[in-house]
Amino acid sequence: MSEFRSKFLEVYSLLKSELLHDSAFEFTDDSRQWVDRMLDYNVPGGKLNRGLSVIDSYKLLKQGEELSDDEVFLASALGWCIEWLQAYFLVLDDIMDNSVTRRGQPCWFRVPKVGMVAINDGIMLRNHVLRIIKNHFREKPYYVDLLDLFNEVEFQTTSGQMIDLITTLEGEKDLSKYSLPLHHRIVQYKTGYYSFYLPVACALLMAGENLDNHNDVKNILIDMGIYFQVQIGTDIEDFKCSWLVVKALELSDEEQKILLHENYGKADEDCVAKVKELYKALNLEGVFAEYESKSYEKLIKAIEVHPSDAVQAVLKSFLAKIYKRQK
Amino acid sequence: MSEFRSKFLEVYSLLKSELLHDSAFEFTDDSRQWVDRMLDYNVPGGKLNRGLSVIDSYKLLKQGEELSDDEVFLASALGWCIEWLQAYFLVLDDIMDNSVTRRGQPCWFRVPKVGMVAINDGIMLRNHVLRIIKNHFREKPYYVDLLDLFNEVEFQTTSGQMIDLITTLEGEKDLSKYSLPLHHRIVQYKTGYYSFYLPVACALLMAGENLDNHNDVKNILIDMGIYFQVQIGTDIEDFKCSWLVVKALELSDEEQKILLHENYGKADEDCVAKVKELYKALNLEGVFAEYESKSYEKLIKAIEVHPSDAVQAVLKSFLAKIYKRQK
Repeated sequence: MSEFRSKFLEVYSLLKSELLHDSAFEFTDDSRQWVDRMLDYNVPGGKLNRGLSVIDSYKLLKQGEELSDDEVFLASALGWCIEWLQAYFLVLDDIMDNSVTRRGQPCWFRVPKVGMVAINDGIMLRNHVLRIIKNHFREKPYYVDLLDLFNEVEFQTTSGQMIDLITTLEGEKDLSKYSLPLHHRIVQYKTGYYSFYLPVACALLMAGENLDNHNDVKNILIDMGIYFQVQIGTDIEDFKCSWLVVKALELSDEEQKILLHENYGKADEDCVAKVKELYKALNLEGVFAEYESKSYEKLIKAIEVHPSDAVQAVLKSFLAKIYKRQK
Repeated sequence: MSEFRSKFLEVYSLLKSELLHDSAFEFTDDSRQWVDRMLDYNVPGGKLNRGLSVIDSYKLLKQGEELSDDEVFLASALGWCIEWLQAYFLVLDDIMDNSVTRRGQPCWFRVPKVGMVAINDGIMLRNHVLRIIKNHFREKPYYVDLLDLFNEVEFQTTSGQMIDLITTLEGEKDLSKYSLPLHHRIVQYKTGYYSFYLPVACALLMAGENLDNHNDVKNILIDMGIYFQVQIGTDIEDFKCSWLVVKALELSDEEQKILLHENYGKADEDCVAKVKELYKALNLEGVFAEYESKSYEKLIKAIEVHPSDAVQAVLKSFLAKIYKRQK
C-alpha cells in the first residue's frame, strides 16, 4: 500500500475541477455535468497501481529523500494522467469487445443515455491527459519529452490493440496463426508500454533523466509486462492469443491440436472444459511454473547489472509487486 | 484550384509509407495491410481544402516569394495532418451518428469485417498526426507550439462534438433549449477551430510567428467558420441545433412554435415538409440573405484593420472561397 494514497486521491478532485473550468472551452451546464459524472464513473474506480507507482518510483529515484509538496503533487498529476489514459483505453475497448461489466459496474457505454456518446467521452479522457500536462508542466524543461512519451506510448498501445483485434476478427479465427512471438507482440504493445514502462518513464523525466539513456530500463519493464500478462491471461472463450494456448499448441501432438482447433474460442461450456482438460493433460501448470522461475531469474540478473542503485530499487519494487500478486 | 495540388498528393504516399514502417511498432503483415487499406479508404478522398489551404496560406504569408521544395513539403505534411485529423473525426462521428455513407461510399465501420475495429482505426488516425509531426518537425523551434496547437484544437473539437451529442440525445429532445448562442458554440468548437483556424495557425507557425500575437486572426477565422456552417446546416430530420431552426424559433409566434415543436427532428416526410413550409412563411431565405451580407461586411472590416498585408491576403482568400461556394 503506497504511503501516498490519500494525497493521490486528493489530487484527483483538484484536477477534475480544473478540467471542468478549462478556459479553452465554454461549457454549458449540461456538458459540465456530463463530464463530471463521466470522470467519476470511469477514472478513479480502479486499483490505481499504475498511478501510484509514479510517485513510489520517483521517491525511490530520489533515494528516499523527503519529497516536497510540489513534487508529490506533480508526480500525482502524472500518475493521474496514466489513470486517465487507462480509462480512455477501457471505455473504448469495452465498446469494441462488446463487454458487459467493468470494475463491478456496467460498462460506460451501457449506462442509459450514454451509448455511442461513450466514444466521444473516451476521446475526451485522452484529451484531458494533455490538458493536465499542459496546465502543470508547460514550463518544465522536460515538457516536450513528456508529450513525446505519452504520444508514443499511446501509439504503441493502439497498435497492440490493432493486432489483437485483427487476430480475433469474427470469421477470421485461425489458430494456426498463433505463436509465441505474436502473443508477445500483442502483450508488449497493448499493455506493457503504458502499464509498466510509462509510470517509471514519468518518474525518470521528473528526476531530470534523459529517456534515451534508459533503454535497458524500458526493456526490463516490458519483459515484466509480458510475464505479468502470461500470469493472468486465459481467455479461452474469447479466442485470445494467450500464452497458454500458444504453449498448448507448441506441446500438442496432432490429435490434441485438432481438439484445440475444434474447441478454442467457443462460448460453449463443454468446449471450454475440453480445452482446460487438455491444458491439464499437457501439464501447463508445471510448464508455467518453470517459465515463471526462469523469467524471474532473468529479470533479477538484468536488474542487478544496472549501474544505478536507485533505478535498481525502482525495478525491484515492480518485480516484487508482480510476483506477490500470484501467491 | 491550388497550384500545389499534385505536389500535395505526392506527399500523401510518402507519409503513408513512413507510417507503415514506423520503427516504434513491429507490424505484422496483416496489420500493415490493414492500416494501408484503412488510410486509403479514409484519408485522401475528400476535397482536401483544409490541407491545401495550409500551403496556400503559407505562400501568401511569404508574400508570393517562391517556396523551396522543403517548404512545400513541410506545409504539405501539415496540411495532411489536418486531413488525417478530419478523417479521424469523421470515422468516429459516423459511428456515433450511425451514418450510412461518407464521401459516396459506405462509412468505414460498415465495411465488412471492420465494424467496431473502426474505433481503434479512428484512434490510429489521430496517433498518426503526432507521428507525422514528430518525424518531420521534432527539430523545429516551433515543435512544441505545433503539438500544443493540435492538442488544443482537438480538445475544442471534441468538446463541441460533446455539446452537439448531448443536445440531440435520444429522449432528451427539447427544442426550448435551442438558442443562437448554443448554435454558435456548437459550430465554433465542433468545426470552426479545426477547419478554419488550424490551417492558418499551421502556416503562421511555419512562418515563425507566435500564435499568442494572433488572437484577432483566430477570431476572424472562427467567425467565418460560423458563417460557413450557417450556410450549409439544415438537418431538419436530425434535430440539429442549426441556425435555421434557431432563427425560426426566434421569429415564430406561439402557434408556429407549437408546429415546430411537433414536427422538428422527425424522420417523417410530412413533418419535414411542414417545417420547410414554416421556414418559407417566415421568409428565412430573406433573413439569411441579410445575415449574410452583414456578416460579410463585418468580416471585411475586421480584416482590413489588420496591420499585416500578408495576413490580410490569407484571410481574404478564405473569405473569397466561402462566399464563392454559395453562388
